[in-house]
Amino acid sequence: MDYTPFFQAALDRLQAERRYRVFADLERVAGRFPTAIWHGPAGPREIVVWCSNDYLGMGQHPDVIGAMTHTAERMGTGAGGTRNISGTSHPVVELEAELADLHGKEASLVLTSGYVSNQTGIATLARLIPNCLIVSDELNHNSMIEGVRGSGCEKVIFRHNDLAHLEELLAAAPEGRPKLVMFESVYSMDGDVAPIHAICDLAERYGAMTYLDEVHAVGMYGPRGGGIAEREAAMDRVDVIEGTLAKAFGVLGGYIAGKEAVIDAVRSFAPGFIFTTALPPAIAAAAAASVRHLKRSGAERAGQARQVARTKAALAAAGLPLLDTPTHIVPVMVGDAEACKAASDRLLARHGIYIQPINFPTVPRGTERLRITPTPLHTDAHVAALAEALVETWTTLGLPLERLAQAAE
Amino acid sequence: MDYTPFFQAALDRLQAERRYRVFADLERVAGRFPTAIWHGPAGPREIVVWCSNDYLGMGQHPDVIGAMTHTAERMGTGAGGTRNISGTSHPVVELEAELADLHGKEASLVLTSGYVSNQTGIATLARLIPNCLIVSDELNHNSMIEGVRGSGCEKVIFRHNDLAHLEELLAAAPEGRPKLVMFESVYSMDGDVAPIHAICDLAERYGAMTYLDEVHAVGMYGPRGGGIAEREAAMDRVDVIEGTLAKAFGVLGGYIAGKEAVIDAVRSFAPGFIFTTALPPAIAAAAAASVRHLKRSGAERAGQARQVARTKAALAAAGLPLLDTPTHIVPVMVGDAEACKAASDRLLARHGIYIQPINFPTVPRGTERLRITPTPLHTDAHVAALAEALVETWTTLGLPLERLAQAAE
Repeated sequence: MDYTPFFQAALDRLQAERRYRVFADLERVAGRFPTAIWHGPAGPREIVVWCSNDYLGMGQHPDVIGAMTHTAERMGTGAGGTRNISGTSHPVVELEAELADLHGKEASLVLTSGYVSNQTGIATLARLIPNCLIVSDELNHNSMIEGVRGSGCEKVIFRHNDLAHLEELLAAAPEGRPKLVMFESVYSMDGDVAPIHAICDLAERYGAMTYLDEVHAVGMYGPRGGGIAEREAAMDRVDVIEGTLAKAFGVLGGYIAGKEAVIDAVRSFAPGFIFTTALPPAIAAAAAASVRHLKRSGAERAGQARQVARTKAALAAAGLPLLDTPTHIVPVMVGDAEACKAASDRLLARHGIYIQPINFPTVPRGTERLRITPTPLHTDAHVAALAEALVETWTTLGLPLERLAQAAE
Repeated sequence: MDYTPFFQAALDRLQAERRYRVFADLERVAGRFPTAIWHGPAGPREIVVWCSNDYLGMGQHPDVIGAMTHTAERMGTGAGGTRNISGTSHPVVELEAELADLHGKEASLVLTSGYVSNQTGIATLARLIPNCLIVSDELNHNSMIEGVRGSGCEKVIFRHNDLAHLEELLAAAPEGRPKLVMFESVYSMDGDVAPIHAICDLAERYGAMTYLDEVHAVGMYGPRGGGIAEREAAMDRVDVIEGTLAKAFGVLGGYIAGKEAVIDAVRSFAPGFIFTTALPPAIAAAAAASVRHLKRSGAERAGQARQVARTKAALAAAGLPLLDTPTHIVPVMVGDAEACKAASDRLLARHGIYIQPINFPTVPRGTERLRITPTPLHTDAHVAALAEALVETWTTLGLPLERLAQAAE
């Protein structure tokens, strides 16, 4: 029996819907971020990346690279086992102390990715709470949804950042029933921010535990890079904070932070933690160097805020259809999968600018977009070139540019 | 409402059952593997690791470390995004070509871990096969079980390596119903080996697709380290081969290899692949260096086979209760959780030998054990010291040593 047709048919459906993804083969260039080499059909070519989640360029910071290479030379390349089977390296232990301190929590636990942190962390926490009702924001990331599914618990979904709806759902649950409220601080695709204090107010009123995903915020917000919860002085009100080491911290891995018993329970019961090889010591050391640096230094955060503001201003002045956001995430709306892909392809091939298309299922159909993430290392010249390239692309593809009031007057 | 008691109660249950795990805080020493520094209660101390899954010591190979440090210096520490969002680095693309070649397959896909490869890979493949019946070995790893659960497909379990039972289950399914047979080549805890050809014979007879986990075999078996399936000349009979970069290859990450359409389907549909940050280029480059080295060099495999044989002989001669295995995995049986933990603690504190206890749920109750993994870098002196330390420990704890026929005569 030939099974290939099942898989080919699924791929054909993606092609027909113009959702088939081709990955750009990139070579990052340390010291010259956001420049990279694109291995395209015409051979290697220098391009500028405008969609990196290495939000602060920490992946090329000399202290971070130095920690990785130095540790690899001292301790080798791998962990050698699960955390229990000889894989608990001293740098991982030190990193966990650094992260607990970052979030003002008793303990933290490092997992192999932010995805796994959510998936196995949420499933494990919810399973250990008898008769737990999960109350989840409708725009929560796939990894959180998989965590909810894995828990086998009953769940209800509140409309995105809608406090009235959240309260309605909390009030509808039987009094005394344990409830876990799950949300993100910065939502990746729309770049909007959750009202953390207001959500915690409701959680307190209705006796719910809270779980906050800060992956698009850690390193970038708060005086020490503790995230939006730190900026809002709400860290102590959130029971579990989940973060990543792979975005603003520029390395790899994820983590959760919270009370000792909560973290120890995930450590002791989460299959996605127990049965997988630990992060290499060199990765842990690099991540710790990055976290330590961003606790002390505000220069990267200030630089990011400045270049984000300049990018938004330049793109708005050019009449490009920006989604207004209070964060470093700058979505330029297209609203059509094929046009979105065409715009991305043209930006790369003609302008040497890489911004991958964001299509369904990552965002709802009709809201396809280019998602731009300015970093402190994008110069003003990069910003000007981006605005120009986008306008050329929009014009060529017949996409609408907004009429500018000032220009028309 | 205070949620801490729920988690504390779960931890208390573990303590009561003597299953609460304390991780040893270790510092690997590149160039001196299997030596490591243990950060114990009395401060740092040099010890010998006898339970590493860095089975060939490749984590300290100069080519592998060199590839990691050189690539980190050139490209930085992180991937900067998911594979789609600027995270497809050139070293990952090269690694995937290397792995497809290793297994004689059309394509391969690298994921963040072997765990994730199984979990999201199996769930995705099975979901794309209409009305798929999963036929799974009862001793398959937790990551495969989670993959089956995630697929939502009907499953049946065959007794471990039991061909008659497998055939019975395959024959019982309606003719023409798609079936996915899932098994491992080397089982981690008992160190036994699946009859790959015989399983493939049955799969062919009953029209089933096959998925083989080779994580405890890749790098170590077969002329180029392609695993047991390569050694048995069975690679082309298995539809999907799953492997890890974190054990014999000494780095981090996992992968699947198979036909183009199969791999592309996982690439295109697996949430645990799509929505997570890619492996750093430095990790991919180190892994590729290791795979390339072990394709050419048989010295590590020969050295491992030699030291495994010597270890088994020395431990058997000392009357220790070995489980007989045809692989590099050497279980010394204890049969009691508390004694197993006590033996491990004594080996570490008194003899400077680290072998973590393997207790329930990793193995069934009553089969608790020390799981020893000799590498090419354990010397004959290490082996002699291990045998002596085990005998001292067994004697002190009152554990049974086998009477030796020769010694008694």
